[in-house]
Amino acid sequence: MEKIRIGINGYGNLGRGAQACLADCPDMELAAVFTRRQPADSLKIEANVPVVHVNDAGEWTDKIDVMLLCGGSAKDLPEQGPEFARMFNTVDSFDTHAKIPEYLAKMDAAAVKHGKIAIISIGWDPGLFSLMRLYMGGALPGGRTYSFWGKGVSQGHSDAVRRIDGVIGAVQYTIPIDNAMQRVRGGETPALATREKHTRECFVVAAENADKARIEREIKTMPHYFDEYDTTVNFISLEELHEKHGTLPHGGNVIHTAKTGAGSTHAIEFSLKLDSNPEFTASVMLAYARAAYRLASAGESGARTLFDIAPKLIAAESPDELVKNLL
Amino acid sequence: MEKIRIGINGYGNLGRGAQACLADCPDMELAAVFTRRQPADSLKIEANVPVVHVNDAGEWTDKIDVMLLCGGSAKDLPEQGPEFARMFNTVDSFDTHAKIPEYLAKMDAAAVKHGKIAIISIGWDPGLFSLMRLYMGGALPGGRTYSFWGKGVSQGHSDAVRRIDGVIGAVQYTIPIDNAMQRVRGGETPALATREKHTRECFVVAAENADKARIEREIKTMPHYFDEYDTTVNFISLEELHEKHGTLPHGGNVIHTAKTGAGSTHAIEFSLKLDSNPEFTASVMLAYARAAYRLASAGESGARTLFDIAPKLIAAESPDELVKNLL
Repeated sequence: MEKIRIGINGYGNLGRGAQACLADCPDMELAAVFTRRQPADSLKIEANVPVVHVNDAGEWTDKIDVMLLCGGSAKDLPEQGPEFARMFNTVDSFDTHAKIPEYLAKMDAAAVKHGKIAIISIGWDPGLFSLMRLYMGGALPGGRTYSFWGKGVSQGHSDAVRRIDGVIGAVQYTIPIDNAMQRVRGGETPALATREKHTRECFVVAAENADKARIEREIKTMPHYFDEYDTTVNFISLEELHEKHGTLPHGGNVIHTAKTGAGSTHAIEFSLKLDSNPEFTASVMLAYARAAYRLASAGESGARTLFDIAPKLIAAESPDELVKNLL
Repeated sequence: MEKIRIGINGYGNLGRGAQACLADCPDMELAAVFTRRQPADSLKIEANVPVVHVNDAGEWTDKIDVMLLCGGSAKDLPEQGPEFARMFNTVDSFDTHAKIPEYLAKMDAAAVKHGKIAIISIGWDPGLFSLMRLYMGGALPGGRTYSFWGKGVSQGHSDAVRRIDGVIGAVQYTIPIDNAMQRVRGGETPALATREKHTRECFVVAAENADKARIEREIKTMPHYFDEYDTTVNFISLEELHEKHGTLPHGGNVIHTAKTGAGSTHAIEFSLKLDSNPEFTASVMLAYARAAYRLASAGESGARTLFDIAPKLIAAESPDELVKNLL
């Protein structure tokens, strides 16, 4: 069998996660890693494949079946996404929820014009959580869906703390409020304020002589990021930060409850507990790379979300095997 | 907006559940209920629509968009399924796992020949649980999936107990073994024997003077149904059976764990807690009736499982709304 040739663009946590997870995809092989670093070969990678500068990506269009775009949503993907969708079938994890419709339109225009498939916003939220919200609401349309995140590291919030003057290092955990989850599970459909669903906990390394009271105040009052939450700030040493807070666990729960008929109550719940957020995200991206390959092979083009993609397209098994073994 | 005209064939628990759940589907309307009863109008239904004898179904082909086949998998669907798939787009809940490939082939032949869509095996297992097994295995291909059922009433097992000589009434609960679920959740991938995953509990009303010891022995040693399980048998009165065991709750858990990279462990879990198994199953069937209608409207034909169907097709919202609100 011909293997699906995968390119990885960006070798941060997500790109390295994709490389690691390819070990569980015998129908795929890594073809090359792409980087903005200059010179490209100054990037040392674990796999024995070429490291190529992004400016030379055009030379790889016939050697890559699906390109995983492993850059960030804030700055990398809005630019790189449409650019790469002209050359390759792509899968990305664009996760700025509010800007997804706009990004989808741009990716669709680029992909349609050049006969490629671009699958966007893959991972777990957006991603599997989004799918669950759709399936749960479809199965029980009279109900209500709640999403909870954590306990886990939010990289965006950690970055925001790190930008504060006098902060040397920081990790921020998002923590769901158990009582809120229990109420939702029990069939209540409470109107929960932001503060009632999650708390935030920060582990911060301050510079010597830094004003810790000011840092704590700046964190807790930071608009959008922290001001609507109850936040705890713990100052620790750099050693402790590296020892105890060096990994990127995450997870969460999607819970949907509804009543049918004369008052039967139903609860559906989906939960994730992930030791490594980027490795899990990358693993889901690889499943959708398989779908991108199949859609492109069938002559389709344009941008897709996981709402558009028949479940069977992500599985390595044949449709007959799926029906026989999983249905 | 034109509403999707739904027919319900069979007015047992599932058919009545479908009628009740239509209240939450403003884009659909019940057109008629079909029955084998003779005369048809001896069946009294709650909705204000015609009750039609199945033999006259042919006269309704242009008045029904999707027919829900609400008969049983043992005797009704193998016969009625292909017969109705010649006349209508259909959705059924065929749930004899081992015979699904054969049933799928028969439904496909009938539906393709007559230009109809037949969506089979909809509900929760087969159904949403099957979908979860596929998505979980796709997202984390290096892992292992376990399905647990209950606590809930198994109608097949309850029927089997009722057929024993001297039994007047019976309800059988399937109960998952908590310790087994905890081990799986914790990332162990144990080889669990049938007996180690579930227990069975029966509530039995015996005839006066019946030999209870014999009944209990016959239950516990019944091949396929009980012999591989630890089973508890409780003899109760008919009043207690009706009072405490008159509803059909069910549910269960699908749990998948896997390791990626250098040993990060991930756990995915999907769970259902249903007050009414038939109402939930019917509600899922209605979601897939929407998909059947859309596929047929797009000119497609043939049999489908939920593995074939893009998630967006089951939702009442438009694709744009789904992306904006759920992704």
